[in-house]
Amino acid sequence: MDGVKRTRLSPEERRAQLIGLGVRMLADRPLEQISVEDIADQAGVSAGLLFHYFASKHDFHLAIVRYTSAEMLAHTAPNPDLEPLEIVRDAMASYVDYVSENRGTYLPLLRGTTSSDPDMREVCEETRAEMVRRVVEHLPSLGIEPTARTELSVRGWIAFVEEATISWLRRPQISRDDLIDLQVSALTAVTLGVEAAAVLPG
Amino acid sequence: MDGVKRTRLSPEERRAQLIGLGVRMLADRPLEQISVEDIADQAGVSAGLLFHYFASKHDFHLAIVRYTSAEMLAHTAPNPDLEPLEIVRDAMASYVDYVSENRGTYLPLLRGTTSSDPDMREVCEETRAEMVRRVVEHLPSLGIEPTARTELSVRGWIAFVEEATISWLRRPQISRDDLIDLQVSALTAVTLGVEAAAVLPG
Repeated sequence: MDGVKRTRLSPEERRAQLIGLGVRMLADRPLEQISVEDIADQAGVSAGLLFHYFASKHDFHLAIVRYTSAEMLAHTAPNPDLEPLEIVRDAMASYVDYVSENRGTYLPLLRGTTSSDPDMREVCEETRAEMVRRVVEHLPSLGIEPTARTELSVRGWIAFVEEATISWLRRPQISRDDLIDLQVSALTAVTLGVEAAAVLPG
Repeated sequence: MDGVKRTRLSPEERRAQLIGLGVRMLADRPLEQISVEDIADQAGVSAGLLFHYFASKHDFHLAIVRYTSAEMLAHTAPNPDLEPLEIVRDAMASYVDYVSENRGTYLPLLRGTTSSDPDMREVCEETRAEMVRRVVEHLPSLGIEPTARTELSVRGWIAFVEEATISWLRRPQISRDDLIDLQVSALTAVTLGVEAAAVLPG
């Protein structure tokens, strides 16, 4: 445990520091067990000061979940320099690696252990909605028309990707590359429909 | 509200009656708000007697969730008299209809609002595992070999089906038949892989 110096931080820096400590703690224990006092201790501030930045323990927990979701979205942002299908493959690889590397923090959110709380659920829903939006926007470049049916398929596909990734982490019976390949193929398969999918490369 | 007669029921009948009242109440309110006293009142028994059948409120809630999951599985059991691909279509139709008709009771379980409780989560996991088992067992009759990769795809597909059904109920932009068709096509598409899927009828 490295001692944290009592340095003067700007409000933004202090807020970020507290969230960062919370995220790190989330790797060891469930969200409900993250104590505001422990975080304040580690930051070298009083619990009172923490409550200056976050109205309640619930607000602090929510900020941790928001940060983690935003981080995942940042890591999986599409790279416009790649070919259309490679953009999907690249984003999937980033997703699988992000979830693997952050299984302590991101997996509990995915598995919905926080989902009895409506605010937490909203963050998860917004995160999924953003993933759906990205994919739907990308469909035309793959030659797929975004219809009500394809949009529903994309929603389903996001759930497919989450579940396949979770199951794979639990029992990795195929290689990482095969998992990514499975997920990319599944997108083209479910959105293009069975016949059309056969004509798409790889 | 129809008055329930104080009849002598066998222990099995009484247990089933209490669970049935709980399931009916689940259509109106979240599980956490189902009070043991209200249920006992409706059944015309004392709360003490209810606790004779269920060790705790938590146990009673768990019994309600187990019952609902078992009911869904019973409704979607494969019909062996049909052709292999029709078995999938028939089960999907039953699934979509069951979830539609029981959106008050089954949907909250699906959306994981009960999932901060490990026991509830286990029931949901077991239900999904049974759905996966059924589909994996059925794959050979569709000409699909069950490998580690196809099994992972089936797991993902179950999540796909759940999410597509939930999204569709919220915003039914395509017809019921199109939804069922989308789900059946998705199974063959993700398990057969892109090329092979094109040769399958339907």
